[in-house]
Amino acid sequence: MGDCPYCKEEYQSSERNILENESWIANFDGHPVNPGHMKIISKRHVVSISELNNEELISMREMMKKVESLGEEQFKTDEYNWGFNKGKNAGQTKFHLHIHYIPRYEGDVEDPIGGVRNIIPEKGNYLKLKK
Amino acid sequence: MGDCPYCKEEYQSSERNILENESWIANFDGHPVNPGHMKIISKRHVVSISELNNEELISMREMMKKVESLGEEQFKTDEYNWGFNKGKNAGQTKFHLHIHYIPRYEGDVEDPIGGVRNIIPEKGNYLKLKK
Repeated sequence: MGDCPYCKEEYQSSERNILENESWIANFDGHPVNPGHMKIISKRHVVSISELNNEELISMREMMKKVESLGEEQFKTDEYNWGFNKGKNAGQTKFHLHIHYIPRYEGDVEDPIGGVRNIIPEKGNYLKLKK
Repeated sequence: MGDCPYCKEEYQSSERNILENESWIANFDGHPVNPGHMKIISKRHVVSISELNNEELISMREMMKKVESLGEEQFKTDEYNWGFNKGKNAGQTKFHLHIHYIPRYEGDVEDPIGGVRNIIPEKGNYLKLKK
């Protein structure tokens, strides 16, 4: 993990991080796709949620709760997507688990239906596809 | 939860379901955005991962592992996105936690960079946006 940017001590202890617990840090994404876009990053080098141990899973939930609360307080929305990428063809560029929290707002896209389905363009709205 | 389609006994015990454990079922999505698109559905009516109890979290991880293995065996890919939607403006249409597993393949989109970021069109590739 020598080259992993998210494993570096200076990343994990950066002042950019807004939240921290035993197994996770959270920060605002440097290239937000929506106002309030945050991500949570596991301290340990894993790639998928499926690799987390029980303690890390439980502390992931606690971190997600805090991020969702921050979204409600600061960004006034309780709507969001959570998701992560695994592998180059899935769009991953930093190969260490980081889960995106993307708060959503009325009108932020023309047609929100499908949410994460829209990772594959034009496939999101399955109601339209049926027609 | 009377009207929730995912709470219904016939949904939770459907023959469409390919995997089941104490707290989760999994099936192939009825409108796959990529071959092998599956979803895992919590048996209990919750909306976000942040509401899961410890047992449900641990059994979520086990279900994710099984789905990822199935993707590797049947669809020959270890690249994927996992994500879910919360709220109408986030694209949710069935208001009960279901987490999408979208297996990814070389060339399935023109530019995969950003993965889940592409929920907001044109915002995915932050490397391009920087230029």
